[in-house]
Amino acid sequence: MTMKVPSPVKWVGDAKTGYLWLIDQTQLPGRVVELHCRDVESVWGAIKRLSVRGAPAIGIAAAYGCVLGAQSGEFKAAGEYLITSRPTAVNLAWAVRRLQTLGTDDPDTLLAEARKIHDEDAAMCDAIGRHAMTLINEQAGVLTHCNAGALATGGIGTATAPMYMAHEAGRKFRVYCDETRPLLQGARLTAWELAQAGLDVTLLCDNMAATIMRDRKVDLVITGADRIAANGDSANKIGTYNVAVLAGHFGIPFYIAAPSSTFDLECATGQQIPIEQREASELAGPPGAQVYNPAFDVTPAELIAGIITERGIIKPVNVDTVAAMLR
Amino acid sequence: MTMKVPSPVKWVGDAKTGYLWLIDQTQLPGRVVELHCRDVESVWGAIKRLSVRGAPAIGIAAAYGCVLGAQSGEFKAAGEYLITSRPTAVNLAWAVRRLQTLGTDDPDTLLAEARKIHDEDAAMCDAIGRHAMTLINEQAGVLTHCNAGALATGGIGTATAPMYMAHEAGRKFRVYCDETRPLLQGARLTAWELAQAGLDVTLLCDNMAATIMRDRKVDLVITGADRIAANGDSANKIGTYNVAVLAGHFGIPFYIAAPSSTFDLECATGQQIPIEQREASELAGPPGAQVYNPAFDVTPAELIAGIITERGIIKPVNVDTVAAMLR
Repeated sequence: MTMKVPSPVKWVGDAKTGYLWLIDQTQLPGRVVELHCRDVESVWGAIKRLSVRGAPAIGIAAAYGCVLGAQSGEFKAAGEYLITSRPTAVNLAWAVRRLQTLGTDDPDTLLAEARKIHDEDAAMCDAIGRHAMTLINEQAGVLTHCNAGALATGGIGTATAPMYMAHEAGRKFRVYCDETRPLLQGARLTAWELAQAGLDVTLLCDNMAATIMRDRKVDLVITGADRIAANGDSANKIGTYNVAVLAGHFGIPFYIAAPSSTFDLECATGQQIPIEQREASELAGPPGAQVYNPAFDVTPAELIAGIITERGIIKPVNVDTVAAMLR
Repeated sequence: MTMKVPSPVKWVGDAKTGYLWLIDQTQLPGRVVELHCRDVESVWGAIKRLSVRGAPAIGIAAAYGCVLGAQSGEFKAAGEYLITSRPTAVNLAWAVRRLQTLGTDDPDTLLAEARKIHDEDAAMCDAIGRHAMTLINEQAGVLTHCNAGALATGGIGTATAPMYMAHEAGRKFRVYCDETRPLLQGARLTAWELAQAGLDVTLLCDNMAATIMRDRKVDLVITGADRIAANGDSANKIGTYNVAVLAGHFGIPFYIAAPSSTFDLECATGQQIPIEQREASELAGPPGAQVYNPAFDVTPAELIAGIITERGIIKPVNVDTVAAMLR
């Protein structure tokens, strides 16, 4: 790639003396602060504080964190400790266990495996981009919500991968970024990373989608997903469902981009997906008013034009096409 | 009313020595700061700064401001000056002209007319409330967007009037308040005034509407309007159109509440309503990203179940029913 896609997580140096390099995402977009994590404790803190976030990026950071543990002869304990930083992030425990099953505490062997996890993630992003870049036509308008971008992964993101690839191929198009209340990941992260890479990006409030869709400024929507049920119902950052309903109303195709690891076939439908409720303090409400603050919503499969995975695009989305792609 | 509905604008004292009292709405909900305007200059500044906002409340403040002008023997000049504070607010010039046509600069006569403007506005709010309070059933959920509340008027608001009246009548129901990005009038003003009056109010982000509608927590939506075309297309704060589309998707009736003076029969449809674009700085975007920030959107008549006016409810909404009610 000739464009400058930000990488949120890197290993710097060799296995025995190297360190984990992170962009401190809590400081974006105001300041680009680098973190050099030279011990397990600082990796744990970076994950906990959301300096590194996004399930794939967390898994990669934890794998490199285990290498730091091996440097000081505490590989096993490091992994168990890192898992406690954010117990709900599936990739975190998965990455730690993958290193543990190697049955060694040799830093070189462990770093090679951590790099493999990182490379596989980057390859997954590239595959998603390749499958979906043809959806973005010259002069198209693409709307996205929250951050399913490079900053959340070890590569060019999931929802953003088709955008980066279409841009790299020289196609001219515009990306509309929802602000994504209450934590503003669209404004702080997605608009930042797309602008860094030289894409034509326009920020808007979550509540402006109907207007730009009515004005035919949007040709397709692509967002990420946090968990996808067996029938294709997809949980993603709060507000995704709003966008999907609006896209349906205006006849605009709505896509989800996510790796096959995001599917949870134990959940038959979206109704079984648990929804995290977050602190009222994330919204500034007056005394006497209650606050409702769910972190995610579930978009029903019938509103989803296709789910873009590293294996191909599931389209139409239903229990049979999901099963066929994941088989 | 036994409940404590905040009044944003009052005259205190007699015509010759009294003053204009305002709640400084720029400080809400953090602090309830009172402004005592004893000269025309301070009224002008309060309108300019949005310490008093909402077309009806601005008109009332300007009328009282003219009385302050008369106190110092500069009635005529005061009116011309006040009109320049926010030239686009229709009620502002209308209220000043109404006092000027009396052909006197006697403070007592002018104060009586200003009070009449204020009383008429309060009566208009009451009439809207009476026509629509029966829409709010026991245990209902009502969603509103932005502030078409007491703080914007000389009475109990427009969209909020049915809520205040149903509450006063002892009905138990819940109001959901959209935060209303980017200026947060829902969070800062509506949630505050409803909570002050003892209503059961829950604040949410604009992008949570689909989730609460899917969960059947919302039985009807009521918002205000800034301008309504002859066919019923209604311009209101950005995000209103999103809510109307979502309500339509979930089969939830969507109402507009606005006085007959909000109709602009010169506009055949919503396409003729000009939309103000506001400063990019209202959204915090990163360097390199553009910002789109329209202040209003236009909800098409076909998405509106009814328009609640002081004369009655226009239902269904079309060019004929609008003309019949305004005749």
